[in-house]
Amino acid sequence: MQVWKDYQQQHKDRFLEELLALLRIPSISAKSEHKTDMIACANSVKDHLIKAGATTATIYETAGHPVVYGEKIFDASLPTVLVYGHYDVQPADPLDLWHTPPFEPTIRDGKIFARGACDDKGQVFMHVKAFETMVATNTLPCNIKFIIEGEEEVGSPNLGTFVKANKELLKADVILISDSSMLSMENPSLDVGVRGLSYIEVEVTGPNRDLHSGVYGGAVANPITMLAKMIASCHDENNHITIPGFYDDVLEASAEDREKMSKVPFNEAEYKADLGVDSLWGEKGYTTNERTGIRPTLELNGIWGGYTGEGAKTVLPSKAFAKISTRLVPNQNSTKITEMLLKHFVSIAPEGVVVNASEHHGGEPYLTPIDSIEYKAAEKAVFATFGKEPIPIRGGGSIPICALFEKELGIKIVFMGFGLDSDNLHSPNEKYDIFNYYKGIETIPYFHQFYTEMKK
Amino acid sequence: MQVWKDYQQQHKDRFLEELLALLRIPSISAKSEHKTDMIACANSVKDHLIKAGATTATIYETAGHPVVYGEKIFDASLPTVLVYGHYDVQPADPLDLWHTPPFEPTIRDGKIFARGACDDKGQVFMHVKAFETMVATNTLPCNIKFIIEGEEEVGSPNLGTFVKANKELLKADVILISDSSMLSMENPSLDVGVRGLSYIEVEVTGPNRDLHSGVYGGAVANPITMLAKMIASCHDENNHITIPGFYDDVLEASAEDREKMSKVPFNEAEYKADLGVDSLWGEKGYTTNERTGIRPTLELNGIWGGYTGEGAKTVLPSKAFAKISTRLVPNQNSTKITEMLLKHFVSIAPEGVVVNASEHHGGEPYLTPIDSIEYKAAEKAVFATFGKEPIPIRGGGSIPICALFEKELGIKIVFMGFGLDSDNLHSPNEKYDIFNYYKGIETIPYFHQFYTEMKK
Repeated sequence: MQVWKDYQQQHKDRFLEELLALLRIPSISAKSEHKTDMIACANSVKDHLIKAGATTATIYETAGHPVVYGEKIFDASLPTVLVYGHYDVQPADPLDLWHTPPFEPTIRDGKIFARGACDDKGQVFMHVKAFETMVATNTLPCNIKFIIEGEEEVGSPNLGTFVKANKELLKADVILISDSSMLSMENPSLDVGVRGLSYIEVEVTGPNRDLHSGVYGGAVANPITMLAKMIASCHDENNHITIPGFYDDVLEASAEDREKMSKVPFNEAEYKADLGVDSLWGEKGYTTNERTGIRPTLELNGIWGGYTGEGAKTVLPSKAFAKISTRLVPNQNSTKITEMLLKHFVSIAPEGVVVNASEHHGGEPYLTPIDSIEYKAAEKAVFATFGKEPIPIRGGGSIPICALFEKELGIKIVFMGFGLDSDNLHSPNEKYDIFNYYKGIETIPYFHQFYTEMKK
Repeated sequence: MQVWKDYQQQHKDRFLEELLALLRIPSISAKSEHKTDMIACANSVKDHLIKAGATTATIYETAGHPVVYGEKIFDASLPTVLVYGHYDVQPADPLDLWHTPPFEPTIRDGKIFARGACDDKGQVFMHVKAFETMVATNTLPCNIKFIIEGEEEVGSPNLGTFVKANKELLKADVILISDSSMLSMENPSLDVGVRGLSYIEVEVTGPNRDLHSGVYGGAVANPITMLAKMIASCHDENNHITIPGFYDDVLEASAEDREKMSKVPFNEAEYKADLGVDSLWGEKGYTTNERTGIRPTLELNGIWGGYTGEGAKTVLPSKAFAKISTRLVPNQNSTKITEMLLKHFVSIAPEGVVVNASEHHGGEPYLTPIDSIEYKAAEKAVFATFGKEPIPIRGGGSIPICALFEKELGIKIVFMGFGLDSDNLHSPNEKYDIFNYYKGIETIPYFHQFYTEMKK
């Protein structure tokens, strides 16, 4: 619609400046030292919702970081879209690998470099600015609600309680989420699912203190060596996960689904070149897209133990630790898998060490049907601004709250992400193309328009 | 001798105070930030040598940390004893496990708690105070030289050059070293050997940046997982080291030697209780004393990669690292083994990652004959103050410079250590019993006396 385009063109510099200001707040949910930053960020999101046209916007306290809720309800007979996103970000470590500081957004080559630029502040803010566009141009076709949480990156531990306690408040016809990627701007795509997550930490204790590796080396189990043996045992020679029962509940993708996936544009040479690796890795019998889309995985997210400083220290350490997460696919249950992982790692403790395992967080996998009005509205919206039909793909990431939304609110989710896999999410030098940011702001109003029309 | 006893009794409080002052200098050779502390510590050792009675004491610069040399030569016809020790200490990490700060020596239960209390400042200082005793009481029976270096804990990288360039200066009849332990004060013992060392660092690189473990997990080799597999492959099910050729040059201990070792007092229940472990670990077919004394070992000294902070981060890291050292036994060659290790770890790099391996430092194993005048003098000295014949044992630690001393100077080494294995060397809460400290000062003059008599 020309009126949206004109408005957005006129305000584009401000749209960018406002996002940069939001990115300057180091809202790292995992680190308790950022508690006041979290509150500042929630307040900023609330203020932006009000300025954009929300009739109410409120900060709801939780047992953890607050939830921001806002809405504009103007006609009960019209459908209501609930926009979900998060204002928290991943930790920025390792800091020395950032080319510019993570919380001083810097623009290079048309890209915004900052922690949260894409995941998810940049994508949340597209919705705020699309909302502002529709309100300012008197074209908002439906009611709209926002739920922007502050704990997505730590597994949304308190959002379930909030949703259960506020079903009426959150009542809507569809949930719209921009927290995912497209294949590329040339090959627009829509995610039709997210993987579940089960994240644990393993602590291996050997001797009750760090020992001299000469005096005791060879006579006492070394917790690093034992942890390495445990980790090494988790995948067999075909890179299948060996934890007993792990695949039991996996709903295998149909031959038809796999056939469709094989048609998705994928250039292995480019993929490898982008990552700087000579060869790819993964479960035997599956393609790269299948490995990240329809198969569960087990990844080591962190490991530490002993002396890790400059030079050498001849120590046989008392403890070694690992952070381990699995991604889950439909029909696997995060609670069940977490329980299985915790038990497994304790059970395979080699002699001479004691293993403790604890849960970080989890979330269920989610699949959205592609024959629904919701999905079709998104498809039309992307077509309207990209001139191409989007390809449905299974995303590899997780949005822990999806399954719970559907269960508690009884409505479907549509994923409409505008990031790229190469945006360095969760990594140093996270970025978001300004082009993609504006493209998202341009596309979102079409979703509201088409969805409202199709619902009528 | 009563005159020594009287003098030491009279000055015991000062002997302790002076050691505590030396322990307050954080002379960590591995960390470049402690360069000025290293110089301060070298100067303190030099001043103490002069005050104790050295006719000259000099600081020799090296490419690394300086060497302190001192001497008192008063009769060329008498034998000369060269005392070797080191004023540098291991890093104090992990700091949070220390009950009192590592460089604020604290006395509890008759023990000095401080980094370097036993290894090796406490033991070096026994020699300085024994020397002072003999000079002050006009009983020094022989010439004496001191070489106290500042790089033992990083593998003495520059001492070889110094020794080769100063053979005349260091000319002596025997080298005396207190940098090892006794079984206990009730079971005095003398080390008859040290193991060699080969210490390397391994870097495993997967993708060129940290990745989102959901977006890429399952499709790209995870460097932590790959490093774990490499480490796990280093020991077989009998805990033999699997690196091809690793045992090739090992000079097996004789049945007679092993028979003698089996007689050394060892209480497995106490050993396990002290370490807080349920079961011991090690190479099949060998006892605990054999595992630490006559067998080569491979230990993980440190590991790190990915996210190691508070909470969870869903990252598939770009890199993982490990610090790995082996202890070597007679006839193994440190240079050869280091070369072997570096090649091995590069060669077993799994597909999808690149491995770089680099050397930290090394040192050769060393065995001293027990039928020599040198050893017998030490045996008599221990008997004089402990009232018991010391048990000859093979130490598990390494003093990298030993083999070079013998080769370059053509003289034998005697180890006369007064520490305990439980002194937390290289660990938090390093300690040294004040009793042992005084016992060492009391015993050392006897060595000089007996050695001089037997040499005549």
